[in-house]
Order: sequence, then structure tokens, then C-alpha cells
Amino acid sequence: MPNASAPANAHTPFDLMLFADYLVPVEPAGVVLHQHALGIRDGLIALIAPSEQARALPSKAQLELPGMLLAPGLVNAHGHAAMTLFRGLADDLPLMTWLEQHIWPAEGQWVNEDFVRCGTELAVAEQLLGGTTTSADMYFYPAIAAEVYHHAGVRAQISMPVIDFPVPGARSTDEALRQGLRLHDELKQHPRLHVAFGPHAPYTVNDANLRQVCLLAEEADANIHMHVHETAHEVSEAQRQHGQRPLARLADLGLLGPRFQAVHMTQISDDDLALLVESNTSVIHCPESNLKLASGFCPVERLWQAGVNVAIGTDGAASNNDLDLLGETRTAALLAKAVSGDATALDVHRALRMATLNGARALGLADTCGSLEVGKAADIVAFDLSGFAQQPLYDPVSQLIYASTRDCVKHVWVGGKLLVDQRRLLRHDTDALAAQARQWAARIRPR
Amino acid sequence: MPNASAPANAHTPFDLMLFADYLVPVEPAGVVLHQHALGIRDGLIALIAPSEQARALPSKAQLELPGMLLAPGLVNAHGHAAMTLFRGLADDLPLMTWLEQHIWPAEGQWVNEDFVRCGTELAVAEQLLGGTTTSADMYFYPAIAAEVYHHAGVRAQISMPVIDFPVPGARSTDEALRQGLRLHDELKQHPRLHVAFGPHAPYTVNDANLRQVCLLAEEADANIHMHVHETAHEVSEAQRQHGQRPLARLADLGLLGPRFQAVHMTQISDDDLALLVESNTSVIHCPESNLKLASGFCPVERLWQAGVNVAIGTDGAASNNDLDLLGETRTAALLAKAVSGDATALDVHRALRMATLNGARALGLADTCGSLEVGKAADIVAFDLSGFAQQPLYDPVSQLIYASTRDCVKHVWVGGKLLVDQRRLLRHDTDALAAQARQWAARIRPR
Repeated sequence: MPNASAPANAHTPFDLMLFADYLVPVEPAGVVLHQHALGIRDGLIALIAPSEQARALPSKAQLELPGMLLAPGLVNAHGHAAMTLFRGLADDLPLMTWLEQHIWPAEGQWVNEDFVRCGTELAVAEQLLGGTTTSADMYFYPAIAAEVYHHAGVRAQISMPVIDFPVPGARSTDEALRQGLRLHDELKQHPRLHVAFGPHAPYTVNDANLRQVCLLAEEADANIHMHVHETAHEVSEAQRQHGQRPLARLADLGLLGPRFQAVHMTQISDDDLALLVESNTSVIHCPESNLKLASGFCPVERLWQAGVNVAIGTDGAASNNDLDLLGETRTAALLAKAVSGDATALDVHRALRMATLNGARALGLADTCGSLEVGKAADIVAFDLSGFAQQPLYDPVSQLIYASTRDCVKHVWVGGKLLVDQRRLLRHDTDALAAQARQWAARIRPR
Repeated sequence: MPNASAPANAHTPFDLMLFADYLVPVEPAGVVLHQHALGIRDGLIALIAPSEQARALPSKAQLELPGMLLAPGLVNAHGHAAMTLFRGLADDLPLMTWLEQHIWPAEGQWVNEDFVRCGTELAVAEQLLGGTTTSADMYFYPAIAAEVYHHAGVRAQISMPVIDFPVPGARSTDEALRQGLRLHDELKQHPRLHVAFGPHAPYTVNDANLRQVCLLAEEADANIHMHVHETAHEVSEAQRQHGQRPLARLADLGLLGPRFQAVHMTQISDDDLALLVESNTSVIHCPESNLKLASGFCPVERLWQAGVNVAIGTDGAASNNDLDLLGETRTAALLAKAVSGDATALDVHRALRMATLNGARALGLADTCGSLEVGKAADIVAFDLSGFAQQPLYDPVSQLIYASTRDCVKHVWVGGKLLVDQRRLLRHDTDALAAQARQWAARIRPR
């Protein structure tokens, strides 16, 4: 495991040295380092070593983190950030009623550039406070979202929405693709942002448009992010209409592969599993949304044991109703056991890996972030495990996954830059953001 | 609905008047009162009225609660409080491995009066900070636990453990029963505590002992609290050994009835359901423990629709790993939808009712607490919904159940006495408690 700074700059002082009680690198798997230090230089992790050794090395700043656990920044691999403005607008309804009678009409009426700016800012702020440093966002006006992520200093994959009918910000699929490609090119050199194709779902995008996505994504070397097999109904309807399961159709169209992100996947046949494994396609598990909309259970343990890369996402706040990836990971860890009938399923170390490195891998960022390794970006969360309700503490990772809420997130760095300090956001005025959200709510549903 | 003070003391000033943005009485069901006040007199709820009217009435003290929601104190209907000292000791293991190789040996080695005192204090403090004002506790040394609950000022049902083998604090079943009955008599007039019989489970208590429990409980007019149908294995083993499902055996032994609390019930046949309905037996649902130990899914919606009273419990911190009833309720609300395949199952109002009035009813306390009604004890929680991640707010109950963590608990009263003020416990030194917990952990698992 990496435990020394790169020799090339061994004598250059570190920009910051963190000294923590616990450090969980995620890679190698299952490891908890006690009393270790992490040195940051030029935005990268430059050292992981026992604190005692690290104290002898030169650093421009030091931070003591007693009672805290350092882990990689969390990766929220599926969401619709701006929908935070619809949080709690319509609950306890079936997926299609919720979509057709509430969410789609509300989107038609309210979604514009200002909405996306405000909703995305709210989402980014909520996620940062909860330890999420990278998120996959699939929503309208992706260029506006990109501005928000850029200024916030976080990492994001922004999907351009592709669907067979006009959407807010794009009157046609072609227009959406043109705008998306322009944004893709603009962000090509961006250190933290990249654009993916976001075909909505098999039942809302026809073969011609999917072929187009496939071709363009290959050309642009871009990811494809798509809701697939969210419900049993989706699969049975597709079989009735196309004589084929949606995943098989996507495979035939050439979409599957290591850059394809299949979101939800509550329905997995043996053939589906074989397709996922062969194509090295990632699955994004959204347990709370799947539960709340009664969509079904994604068989996480079965996928994991078959070698499929499983990441995790909160989905949008309109169907969750928060963007709390730590809480989502706890739900996933608990649920995987009951769904597989095996209490050893998705243990705490694997759960944390799902929420970090697997997410990074799904988004094509495994070389950049997702684990605390020398040479990777310094995307780091300091979780405070000294709280009263976290005592006694036998196993810090168990305590993080099973006995902590996101309120234990104390500090967050992205690319070595401190964005959350002592539970306070450094680049956001949360009071002003909350006030804006209240103004939107007053317009969307007047009292 | 109650909206006026009792006429007998209409001119006596209230001891305290609370003015809140939202008040959810739970009974009547589904109601949210906006800008209402709650008046407390002699530990009881004496008034619920629009704030404007209430401001004209005399009160010795007033508290403004802007942005807050008043709800009944939460009722945790199943737990093993002192096991908080085993939080995170052994995770990600099957139920019987966890019990036989970890928990039972640890209990044999460590559980004594000091352990129960410290563990119960820790649990009570954690629960109060999370808005739980009443809890059902099933553990060894019930007299020690009773002392802790008495001094803490909370409400509790304390179960005397009944099992076919010697346990910490009782060398035989008879000794356990004698001790329990003594405690039952001592607490008969206690305003907040009562003792129940706690036969561990059908597979650990023989017919003779169960008959004894049935007889004594009837004589003492006491509740019976028991793990039943926790796993499919328990049911199939019983069918193999006794030729009968455990619930049917309990029915034959005469145990079922309105004072019987069947904890877990992940396995429910049509015959089981009929037995529960006919006997008016309550079910205590422990979703997170059932998930974590891969025990199965309790069909909450099916029970509810059949008219069974379903309450909710966290189970012990060794298998959860927290005592967070608000979080547990969120899990229950999400899970019920996927288990029933119906996104309208266990909506937010019913979820809150399960965590309050249904719990009170299960514990025989429905006339005392569980809802905000004039004449009931002033067991009240003020939840702060003004937080940044709870915006925008369209529906306060949705926000409480789906978008809040227990950290939003701001004030807690039991019987009109303030026990949590501004998120701080008034009768506990949490630093001292945490230090004690750390000392226990250092002994139980030395580094």
C-alpha cells in the first residue's frame, strides 16, 4: 500500500498535513489505519504515513483531527440536483402517477434557467455538508448546472438529457444533443467537470435516438447515464412492445460497456446479469428511491459477487427526499442483507467502497478520486466519530456506516481545497440559499 | 377535535404555553394545525388552540417555536437498552452466529448491575436527544434499569426476562419471575414506569414456563413482550419440533391478546394474521434489525389493512446500531412500500402514528400518551424544520419523516417536564456518559 511520498518532491513541504485517529483508504480494501497522517501537495494526496513519522516532515499547515475518520469524498452516482426544489411536493404515490400527474407537470410549468441554478446550488450545498464531493447530475439546462458546479469547487458528471419529446431548454432531441456536445467540448479540459449523455430511459427514447447517442458518445469518448429496469412494469411492457427486455435492447444497440451507467436495475434476469458482466457495465443502485416508489429491490449482493461494479446514488430529492449519501449507504448496507437473505452481504467496508471508489469507477474517475491513495486528488472527508451517540466505538467503519448521520461530517476537501470547515460551507451562504428555496416554494405551491 | 381547555380550570393560568408553526396531534389522524398553541397544566395537555386565541389566555411561561413542528413524544416499542454498550461489537453476521458466538458470550462475561446502569443511561440519553419519550426495554437486571428510567424522567415499560436457562442476575426462571413480580408491585403506583413479562422467544421458553407467564400476567394485569417469528428458520424449526407454528402455539397456551406484544413477526401466514386480528395482539416492527440480521420483511401494510395495531422499535443498539426512532420510522415508511409493492403504503401520517400512538397502544398507554390531545400527558417533541436541508417545505410531516434526521429534535417534554432544551439534555452529563462508555469498551475489547 502507498505509504511514502513520491521521491521526486520528497523535500518540498506539504501544503497541508492532516493527523487523524482513523484513516480508511478504501484501496486497499478493508483497511483501517490508526493514528495516520495524510499530506496534501498541489491538490493531490502526496503522503499517507503513521502520524509519528509524518510529524518529522515539513508542511506549511497542519490540522489535528482527534476522534475523526478520514475517508475519500463520497460519490453520489445518480441524482437530479435541481429537483431539490420539488422536495416533498408529492409523496407516497406510485412512480407513474408521481411522474405523470405531479413531477412532469411541475417541471413543464416551473423549470427554467433560474430554477436550475437555484435548485442545483441548494443540492450542491446539501451534498457538500453531507460529505459528497462528486455527483452525477442528470437534468435540464446542463450548462447552468455546470456553472454552479464550477463555482462550488466540486466534482461532477453532468448528463445532457436525451428524450423523444421537447424538454425545458431544448425543443428537440437534436437541439439537446447539440447543446450537450457544445458543453462537452467546452468542459473537455476542466479539471473537475465532464459531460455525459443522459438518455432518460428505454421507454422514452427510441432506437434512432439511442443509436445516435451511441455513435456520438463513442466519438466524444463520453459516458452514458440512463435509467434502466427501474420497475418490473417497465420490463414487462418492453417485452410486450418490443419482444425484448430493455437491457437486451440496449445491448443490441451497442450501448452497454464500461462507460455505460445503468441506473436502478431492480429487475435482473440471468441473461441481464450475463450482459452486465460481459460488457463491464456499471450499475447505479438507488435504494431509497426504489423503496419509496415501490420500484423493487436491486440485487446488489448478487451483482457484486458476479463482478459487476455497483455504485450508489440518492436519486433526486423529489423521490428520496434528501441527498444524504451516507444515509443512503446505510440503507443499502441494511437492505442488501435482507434482499440476499445473507447477513454477511455488503459489509461496512464494501458499503463504503460502493459509496466512493465504485462510484468513481462508474463515472470514469477511478484514476482521479474515490480512494485515499498517493497521486489521487485530495477529495477527503473528515467524519467526526467522537459524538455521544457513537459511543462506545469498537469499529470505526461500523460506526460510520451504521451509527452516524451526515451531521458528523466536519471538514471536506475537493482537490485539496477546503470547502466545508467545522460543518460550515465556505463558498455558500446557506441562509440566502434557504430563503431562495422558500421563495420558489411560495410560487410553486402558494398557501 | 379537542380545541379548548377543560372548563373546570378555564381561568387557572397554564404552566407553559407553546406557540408553534405546525402542530401534528396524530389523533385525529392526518391533521396538521398551522400556527397553533399548546397549553400545559399540571403535566397534562390542557389546551390546543390557534395561537391567536391562546395569546389572550393567562400562562406562567411562554415559548415561541418558529419553524418548528410539535408532535407527540416518540414511542420506541422494542429495545434492549443496556446493549448500547455492545454497539458495533459484532456486525454483518447471521442472527444465530451473532447471538451464539458474540452477543451471548459477551453478555455472560460482562453483564452486571454496573453494566446495565451505564448502558441504560447511555440509551435513555441517546433516545431523549432523538425525541423518544417512552421506551419498551427488555433486558437483565430490570430493577437497575427502572432506577435509571425513574431518575431520567422518561416513560418506560420494563420487561423482566424469562428464559429457560440462568441469566445475569437470575439463576433460574423462578428467581427471575420472583424478582420481576417484586419490581412490578413496587412500581404499581409509579406515574411513568410499569413492568411487563418478557419471555425471550418461543424457542427459548418451554410450555411450562409460558403457562406460568400467562397465569401471572393475568393475575398482575401486566403486558407480555416477546420476540416472535423473527426468522423463517424459527418458524420451520418449530414446525419440525412441535408440529406447529410458534404463534399458534402461543395462542394455544393462551398468551395472545391486547396486552401481548409480538416483536418482529417477519413471517405471517393467513392463519397467523387471523390469530393476530382475533386476539387484538399488537405487532412491534423492527425494520432495521430485521434488515441487518437478514431476518426477513414484516408485512406492515398487510397487517395495518387487516386492523392489527403495528408499533415500531429500534431493537438493541447491538443490532441496529442506533436508537434513532425517527430514522427507524423513515426506514419503515420506505420499506413498507417496496414490501407491499404499493407506493401509497404507510404514508407519512401513518408512519408517524406508528411511532407514537400505536406504540402507546401496544404498551397499554393509549390513554396516557401517544397523541397531542387535551387530558393526555404532555409528552411532546419540538422538531426544528427550519434547517437548510429541509428546504423548501411543502408538507411538514413529509419533511419530518423523509427529509429530517434526529438532529432536528430541539426540545423534549415528558409529563410537562422539559428534559431536552435546545438539543441539550438537562438531566444528563453526556461527556461523562461517553467517557464511561469508552471505559467499558476498553475493558470489553482491549486494543
